[in-house]
This record gives sequence, C-alpha cells and structure tokens, in this order.
Amino acid sequence: MERTLIIETIKKAGEKVLLNGWVDTKRDHGKLTFIDLRDRSGKIQCVGFQKMSDLSVQSAIQIIGTVKNRPEKMVNNELPTGTVEVDVEEYVVLGKAEALPFDIGNQDLDLELPTLLDHRSLTLRHPKVQAIFKVQAVIIDSFREFMKSQDFMEFQAPSITPAVAEGGSEVFEVGYFEHKAYLTQSPQLYKQIVMSAFERVFSVNKVFRAEPSITTRHITEIVSLDAEMAFINSWEDVRDMAERTVKYIFTQLEEKCADEIQLFGATIPNVIERTPTISLKEAQDKIFAKIGKDVRGEKDLNPEDEREICKIIHEETGSDLVFVYGYPTRKKPFYVYPNPENPEVNEGMDLLCRGVEWLSGGRRVNDYTQLLEQVKTWGMDPGKIKLFLEAFKYGVPPEGGFAFGAERITMQILGLKNIREAVMFPRDMERIDFRLSSAEPEPTN
Amino acid sequence: MERTLIIETIKKAGEKVLLNGWVDTKRDHGKLTFIDLRDRSGKIQCVGFQKMSDLSVQSAIQIIGTVKNRPEKMVNNELPTGTVEVDVEEYVVLGKAEALPFDIGNQDLDLELPTLLDHRSLTLRHPKVQAIFKVQAVIIDSFREFMKSQDFMEFQAPSITPAVAEGGSEVFEVGYFEHKAYLTQSPQLYKQIVMSAFERVFSVNKVFRAEPSITTRHITEIVSLDAEMAFINSWEDVRDMAERTVKYIFTQLEEKCADEIQLFGATIPNVIERTPTISLKEAQDKIFAKIGKDVRGEKDLNPEDEREICKIIHEETGSDLVFVYGYPTRKKPFYVYPNPENPEVNEGMDLLCRGVEWLSGGRRVNDYTQLLEQVKTWGMDPGKIKLFLEAFKYGVPPEGGFAFGAERITMQILGLKNIREAVMFPRDMERIDFRLSSAEPEPTN
Repeated sequence: MERTLIIETIKKAGEKVLLNGWVDTKRDHGKLTFIDLRDRSGKIQCVGFQKMSDLSVQSAIQIIGTVKNRPEKMVNNELPTGTVEVDVEEYVVLGKAEALPFDIGNQDLDLELPTLLDHRSLTLRHPKVQAIFKVQAVIIDSFREFMKSQDFMEFQAPSITPAVAEGGSEVFEVGYFEHKAYLTQSPQLYKQIVMSAFERVFSVNKVFRAEPSITTRHITEIVSLDAEMAFINSWEDVRDMAERTVKYIFTQLEEKCADEIQLFGATIPNVIERTPTISLKEAQDKIFAKIGKDVRGEKDLNPEDEREICKIIHEETGSDLVFVYGYPTRKKPFYVYPNPENPEVNEGMDLLCRGVEWLSGGRRVNDYTQLLEQVKTWGMDPGKIKLFLEAFKYGVPPEGGFAFGAERITMQILGLKNIREAVMFPRDMERIDFRLSSAEPEPTN
Repeated sequence: MERTLIIETIKKAGEKVLLNGWVDTKRDHGKLTFIDLRDRSGKIQCVGFQKMSDLSVQSAIQIIGTVKNRPEKMVNNELPTGTVEVDVEEYVVLGKAEALPFDIGNQDLDLELPTLLDHRSLTLRHPKVQAIFKVQAVIIDSFREFMKSQDFMEFQAPSITPAVAEGGSEVFEVGYFEHKAYLTQSPQLYKQIVMSAFERVFSVNKVFRAEPSITTRHITEIVSLDAEMAFINSWEDVRDMAERTVKYIFTQLEEKCADEIQLFGATIPNVIERTPTISLKEAQDKIFAKIGKDVRGEKDLNPEDEREICKIIHEETGSDLVFVYGYPTRKKPFYVYPNPENPEVNEGMDLLCRGVEWLSGGRRVNDYTQLLEQVKTWGMDPGKIKLFLEAFKYGVPPEGGFAFGAERITMQILGLKNIREAVMFPRDMERIDFRLSSAEPEPTN
C-alpha cells in the first residue's frame, strides 16, 4: 500500500490510507485514543478504538486506517486537515520514543535557551522551532532565486584563508599542516575577484567571527549572503539591487511562510515604492529635530540612533526600511569608494530595518592605483592580498555589492529575542553543541 | 542611454546601442580595429574606424555604436551573435588593463596548474575556465532544485565541531578561544538529527579533510551535497532518490550547459531506465569472468576494479552509472545499517560513474539500542556524539541518505585531469591561494 501524505487526506474521505509520522500528542479517553500525527506535510487527528498503551509521544509510527469526514461541529479550523480524521485500523511502531525530558506539545515552547539547545534533536520537532527554520530556508533560497533572475552567477567562496587581510583579532586560527591559516571573516575579496571575471556573482557561504563576548546578537559561525556586480553607473545601482533583493525575499515569505510568521505574531516589514535613502548627516539632523538628541558630527549611528531614525522614517513615510549613506571614509574598509566630490565620506551604505542594520554594501574602488593608495592609507600589507589586487591590474569597471547575514534577518523578521534561536546549532564563545566550559559531556547510556 | 546586453544585439540591427564589457581580443588592421567584446551574456565583434591605441586587451570599456547585419558570407556561426557586428562610434575605458603576463585569448588555455591558480583573477576570464564554474553552479543548483521538488528542506550544517567523532587524523584543528575545536569532515550526524525532526532534509555545505598527500583527486575544502530521508521502506528507496537526483542534474546540464560541455569535448553520462544495481560480490564475479582478475573476497573495489566494473556494465547495458551495494559492515561507518539477514554486509551503497565513485549512501541504523551497540563495536566514545545519539532516543523511523562532492562531479563530467581545475580557489596541503612553502608572497606594487 502506497503512503499517503497527511495533507492529502483531506481529498480522501472514505478511503483507506497508510500514513507515516510522529505522535505529536496522545490523549487517552477510556477505550478511545486520540493521536495527533505529524509528517512533513502537516498534522492530522487519528482515532484509535483501542488502548495503544505501547504508543509513546514522539514515537515514529505507521498507521493504516480510513479517512472520515468530521461532523460539522467537530471541524477544527486551526488545522488544514481539520475537516477529516482517520480511524485507526492497524498501527506499527517504527521508532519508539523514550519518556521525554520535557513537554514539547505546548503551543509555546517555554524553555531556557541552554535547554532548547542541549536537546536540539527534540526541540527541532516543535512547530515554532520548525517555523523558524522554514522561514530561514525561504530567506536563503529566495535570495538565490532573485540573484539568478538578475543574471548573477553563484560561486563557492573559500572558508580557509592564508592571512588576515584586514587585521583584527576576531579571527579563528586553523592548524594547517605545518602552517597557520585562518577561517574567513568575509568572502569580500574573493567575490570581487570573481566579479572581475563573471560580472555579476553571488555566494551563500559561512563566515566566522571570533567574537569574544556573549550577546544576544553575536554568534561565531554565520551564513553570509553576498552579491557583487560590475558596470554600475553609481552606488545607487547597488542600492537598487539590494532593495529589490530584500523586497523579493519579503514577497516570497508572504507567499510561502504566512502561517509560520503568524505563529510568532510577527509581520513582514512594510515597504514602500522607493525605500527612503538619507545621508548620515540627514539622519543625525532628523534625530536632533525630533527628540533633541545631538549626535550630529558622530561618525556612525549607534544602536539607539538606528532605532530612532527607523522610527522617524516609519512615521514620515510608512517604510520599515531606510538606506543610510555618506559614512566617513575611514570608518569603512579600504575597498569602499570615496565620494570623488567629498573624499571625507564614502559611497558605502547600510540598510536599516525596524531599528537594526540588516545589510551593508556600496560602491568599491575599482582603479588599481587608487586601490593601492588606499591599502597604504589603511596600513595594510599588500602582499597579503596579492591575489585580490591582481584582479584590478587587468581591467575592472565601476562595481559594487552588498552582504547580509541570514540569521540576523530571520531573527528580526520573527522578532526572536536571541540570534541563537535562529541557528540550529549555534556556536559562540561558550558553546559548540554543548557548553564548552563544562567538562566533557557524560557518556550517553 | 540604457545598456544593451551583448546577446540582445542580434535583435537590434540598425539601432544605436550602449554596450559594456571586456576586450577579449583586439586586432589592428590599419585604420580598422576589430574587437571581441565580452559581457556576462556573450561576445560580439565590434569594428572601430580608428586606431584605439589606448585600448589594451582585457580592459573594461563602454562602447556606443550601431548594430549592423553582417553580409551573409561574413556570418560567424561559432558565435550566437555571429549575424551582427557593432560599428563603434564612441568608447570609454572604464578600467584599463596592464599588459597581461600571458595570452588568455587562445581557445585552449595551455597553462601549468600553478600558473592557472596563481593568476586566478585573470584565468577566470577564459571561456573554458568560465565554463567549468557555470557547469558547477548548475550541478549545485539543480541538486537543490530537485531536493526541494521532493519536499526536502534545506538546512545549514555547522562547520566548527566540538570533537572528532569518528577518529582519524585527517582533521583540521581550530583554536577556539580557550578551547580546541575541529573543522567538520561531514555533516552526516547533524543531517540525521535534522532529518529526525523534519523528515526530509538536504544541505550544501563545506567539509574539510586534512588530506596529507598531493593527488589529482584530493583537496582540503570540498562542497558536499547531502540528503537524508525518513520513512523509507528499504535502502532501495535511498538508491532510487539518489538515482533520480543524479538524472535530474544531467537533464539540467543538458538543457543549460550544452555549449560548456561541448567546449571540453565531453558528454553527459549515459543513463538507462533503471540504473544497474549489483552487489560487491557480483561485481567481483563479473570482473573475474571478464578479465580473469580475481578480486573475489576483497572487502572493497579498488580504483582499478571500479574502472573495470564500469566498463563491463557499460558494455552489458549501455549505462554509465552503476550502484554497488553489499559492502562488509565493518568497512563502512558505524551508522550504516547491517543487513538483518546477513549482518556481515551492510545496506550502504556507492554510485559509480565512468570508473569513479560519485556518491555514497544507504540505510542508517535507526534503533537507539542497536546504534549504541554499534558505537561500542566501532570503539567510539558515545560522549562525543551525545547530541546525535539523543535524537534516536525519541523515535526515529527507518531512514537513509546520500552525499556527494560537487567538485568531483564537475571534474568527471568535463573530463578534467585535476580536481583543482574544478575549484576556483583550491586548498591543498601545499596551497592556499599561493604555494605555502614559499615565503610570504612579495608585496604587489
């Protein structure tokens, strides 16, 4: 007998079906047993006319039974299969579950973060946890889909790098045979090399930050969504591509993840026809005018300012998104293009959403001589980025790109309190699967 | 004036266009200059009625000119735009190229591997090199497309792991704050955890092997394409999914990369309705019967045997693919399912193609007690895989999966001699961007 997916039962009233799935909940009512069975397609109520005492919650089972229409007043509108149920005729336990260490049948999974992560195999079965990773998969996939639709070619950026190009101590060292190597902090230089040959490129790759502090926003292993494009007319072309990318992701989330987003009481950020674009100076002026806080002349927006300017822009225009440009040149990396009319500021930009920076990008320096000068000004060793620099010797037109982290966007859209909730197996200073400072975990037995 | 992509010129005879691109070749004919201009969409011949002496090969330029139909006898059938050419009216150099260290205008790029890699930014511009990475992008993307079409959910497997689960010295150590960590050798255990919650999952992630030898087939950083599925009836369900995945990749390559594959004089492997599936023993018997070489009783096929059995199967059936199963249980990892009727062999399998192993997979042990026993038999420390083992405490049905490396398949399909050609920035024992044993590369200036 062929397996029927749970979601297909709604079209099979009166038919005998074979279902596979996990026992989400089980309720004993004397001689009747009610089961919520879950597979990858959904959930359905099954009714057993027997004790089923060997059936523990979360066990994987196979059921043979008949699909029945529920009486009208018994219809469960919360469930896509709420119009039907399955009368169990036979069942087999395919994988028996031991007693659970905690209840995961609740609508809200009210666990401390360490418990959530220490028992990942179990907590990944909870509908709200599953929703997070479905949303994340759609974010990543719709990034790729949009990039491909715009002729960007996917490439694989390396994870192991020979040198720390931009300095900084927040880098992991790798013992590489007899040598030292490092985990990449960004595919930036490689994506510019590949752009110089393929014109438009993107990558979805891990980046690593040896962030020596424990915050709700930092993890050490991040999924970076990266794009780079040649033959731009100005940095605004990069902004437009970033804007269209983010808007496309939102339309896909709306189409594919409405239920998941609703589970969190969240909403997709509001976009308007043209996302407001303001300079750092304008942002600071607006903050001063609105709440009297004087950050004019500061070289960046701090997190509080980011929240404030997003609030102001939202009040003024209805947009949850705002681009900020015109940052001081020396506050951004060496490859960001200085504004030729005012080299004190550059043509980099950030996209803020609901008070938080989502994405960074901008135009890059494409002229070899100018690039070498900036390398020197920034105090970098050109020998460490030789492969990168060579690309610019052989003809690179005006170009730019952008990057953003999949986890942060997932966290922001769903309103999660901690970025670790948006990672299946988060790594931080104190945790790789389990807490590091504790001794070796005890043997399981 | 809006930019026209080169491929669009074929529909614009008589129109004035603005083109952006790189100067692929330049030929001076007295007062006429012929340029092949290349952008992401293709190549076109441009004719300048001036000297263009400032135009060096590989420079990025912008051209304004008029598209003209070529006289019939001047049509170039090798080029999709061969029916037209562009008469140059104005041009601007957007990024000037210095003199190239070697000619990349040739049809065949006849460079030693170190030169090919030391000048990656330049060699990535060669049509044959570009073809390799277009083919690879299609392989990876069509893997994902097929997985999604079969309800597999994408997840992100971690790169940093806390312990070396299966032992072995071929692992890279990472300095992780005050601790030791390791780069993942496989997402295997994580994908089984995620499968236990999501039923069908896949990932495209880097894996790392500290391979202490220099061969044409080994690199240290690999793109692993991984799938895992629950509720299988037998290992054959896994085989069928692997077969359909590979066949789908082939149809996509045929549709999207015919030109690229032809550039290498390569062909897509031949498939038949049902890929032959034979046991290790049958393979050994066939080799003995055919060429008299007696490897009966060996625990595995060596590379020579793999070539031989592929040849035999191809002669017998026409298929370039063959599944081999029935390997000795102890020759495969602890999680592979032993055949209940003959526990000396397991339900793992390999897919061979044209003489080489492409993919490995099979059914896994899903019963917690059996899994713990195998962990002990294999001499492993259960404490090091606690997170993995817990998944099996809470109900895992019969399941299996498979994995393969994107680079090896790219290499095999195109008939490349060295796997490093199938990686933009290959890492091996002696190379990360540049050769490691040489001193620090000289500063570029």
